[in-house]
Amino acid sequence: MTASAHDSTGATLSYEQAGVNYDLIDPLKVAAQRAAAATAGHLTAHGFTEVKASRGESAYVVDVGPFYLASIVECLGSKALVADEMHALTGKSYYAGIAQDTIAMAVNDLITVGATPLVVQAYWAAGGSDWFGDAQRAQALVAGWKAACDTCGVAWGGGETPALAGIVESGRIDLAASCTGIISPKSRLSVGDELAEGDVIVLLSSSGIHANGLSLARKLLERLPEGYLTEVAPGLNYGEALLAPTTLYSPVTEALAKAGVSMHYCANITGHGWRKLLRHPSTLTYRIHTVPAVPPVLSFIQKHAHHDDREAYSTLNMGAGFALFVKAEDAARTVEISKALGVDAVIAGVVEAGPKQVVIEPINVTFGNDDLQLR
Amino acid sequence: MTASAHDSTGATLSYEQAGVNYDLIDPLKVAAQRAAAATAGHLTAHGFTEVKASRGESAYVVDVGPFYLASIVECLGSKALVADEMHALTGKSYYAGIAQDTIAMAVNDLITVGATPLVVQAYWAAGGSDWFGDAQRAQALVAGWKAACDTCGVAWGGGETPALAGIVESGRIDLAASCTGIISPKSRLSVGDELAEGDVIVLLSSSGIHANGLSLARKLLERLPEGYLTEVAPGLNYGEALLAPTTLYSPVTEALAKAGVSMHYCANITGHGWRKLLRHPSTLTYRIHTVPAVPPVLSFIQKHAHHDDREAYSTLNMGAGFALFVKAEDAARTVEISKALGVDAVIAGVVEAGPKQVVIEPINVTFGNDDLQLR
Repeated sequence: MTASAHDSTGATLSYEQAGVNYDLIDPLKVAAQRAAAATAGHLTAHGFTEVKASRGESAYVVDVGPFYLASIVECLGSKALVADEMHALTGKSYYAGIAQDTIAMAVNDLITVGATPLVVQAYWAAGGSDWFGDAQRAQALVAGWKAACDTCGVAWGGGETPALAGIVESGRIDLAASCTGIISPKSRLSVGDELAEGDVIVLLSSSGIHANGLSLARKLLERLPEGYLTEVAPGLNYGEALLAPTTLYSPVTEALAKAGVSMHYCANITGHGWRKLLRHPSTLTYRIHTVPAVPPVLSFIQKHAHHDDREAYSTLNMGAGFALFVKAEDAARTVEISKALGVDAVIAGVVEAGPKQVVIEPINVTFGNDDLQLR
Repeated sequence: MTASAHDSTGATLSYEQAGVNYDLIDPLKVAAQRAAAATAGHLTAHGFTEVKASRGESAYVVDVGPFYLASIVECLGSKALVADEMHALTGKSYYAGIAQDTIAMAVNDLITVGATPLVVQAYWAAGGSDWFGDAQRAQALVAGWKAACDTCGVAWGGGETPALAGIVESGRIDLAASCTGIISPKSRLSVGDELAEGDVIVLLSSSGIHANGLSLARKLLERLPEGYLTEVAPGLNYGEALLAPTTLYSPVTEALAKAGVSMHYCANITGHGWRKLLRHPSTLTYRIHTVPAVPPVLSFIQKHAHHDDREAYSTLNMGAGFALFVKAEDAARTVEISKALGVDAVIAGVVEAGPKQVVIEPINVTFGNDDLQLR
């Protein structure tokens, strides 16, 4: 991502200016990943083995014999701050949607490896006991959490509701979810062994910004005299548009598995935007011939942040929340199944032999290997 | 817990004065528990069922056919604040121990249902990217996390390292761990069906305060002119004593299972102190004839908080970090196996017919049913 020296209105607003500096986080991540990889041998004592290819994927997978076990913990990020600020402006509680966002962060990652999510645990760490004393907000969080579990067909196992004064800021809440699932039959494992030339890329539509890019979205407020109440489309203000809950994709992946569609690979389009299409370790070219419609809130952000298409597609989901890589003959059926479940989908491109890059033809943007260092 | 109107030195210092008000949190917890219970039916669609008795236990259990699946997410709480304050005083990093504490919160709960912990996920949410830029502290966290995984024989699957400015306070970190395990063979399930009169209570020693009661411990600083540097025992100051890492009990429960000792029930002694011995839903009396040695830091807190034994044992672990309920004939072997692994243990009491209560004879304290409302 580009760091820019100026931050006045009219200048490009980068993600780093929005407060996240990956250069500081990355050395720790690398050290943690190395240390984590060195613990895999412990599973042998229990008669199990890790699926090594899942290291660096969105969820961790262990072979426990009759099936694979997948697990993950994921954070909401800063989207709850938008809910808080909008509550101050409108009096409404947006925490039902925030709950869905939090579960989506975990579930949409877990399913990339082919897992059926089974159990979700809630991690709700508030800045003080009084956070939980606001009954309207607390009930919205509970109701939204349950509704998202219902949509995904997962059991809500329990969770933690600590009051962490001195760690979490007063009046705020740190939301996360852990999710455990199984991959059964084992042939559903989709850590990428099957991805090949000729596979087709199907993109599932996003509902908006989802829960990535919110630091940037909040930073943009400086440039909006009406702030969150600025219209992004007729009758839709910026705040409400940002708070559209993240689409839950597990109903689609479960339906595809039931229909016998084999997912060769999946990518959850979150941070790093469309560069996530480069996630697979192979050297392959992803040629995109069709891009989905861009949600109004994302066009709005692109415009006001003065992002060109390259920066916008490298940061935001731009209408594509989840990518499925399937056999060419399964592509039409994949789209059909997704649409039948209310999730719009488009046959967007193909996997080709060639250098590791994603070529987005309609906007004339190419991301190469250097643009994504996730592992 | 007693709420007291005065907070001057000399007065009893209650847990509520230390900043945690359960009256505000509990209605949300009840609503969340009800909503969570209503999601159990989703497992049927996948051919599975929940183990209903695990609702209200420390970990959630699902019957997935060949074995049970157990999962949990747990928060460290406020112990990292002590590490931060001690770092300012001594220049040392205490985050290796803090990492062990965090994993212990999850693992020690997961094993209560009879599970073998398999995978741990890290949740490290910092107040800003710069938290991760302190290499000494970050490396200590990584090294301690790995060492605790090594002790427990679990694979570190991965995790999240978000920078949450505006949610987590600047310079602070919100630490949590999720853990997934299996119960295999299924006969290891210990949600309490087998607990019966005549069973013996074995208490495993704690290393100190562990990670519960830290709000109280920090509040006490007001009464200590030398603060964290006050001696609690020769050569041991209050801060270092508080930071003794929580004992990891999974090596003991795994060794017991291998030796054929059946755990009828377990209780991880955390918040609510010895009232946790009342966790099992049955109406039974727990008669304690022997109490373990109290770690100096807990005697020190009891003295300076002016707690009588009743309040101290109802808040802190008082030397007992984990309770095992086993057949009388297994009691001596349980102690032996635990000691061989370096965890001191004592045959502390027996399970009897009678009203639901724990009678701690050596200190003449009884906790009844009204003293613990966890479900």
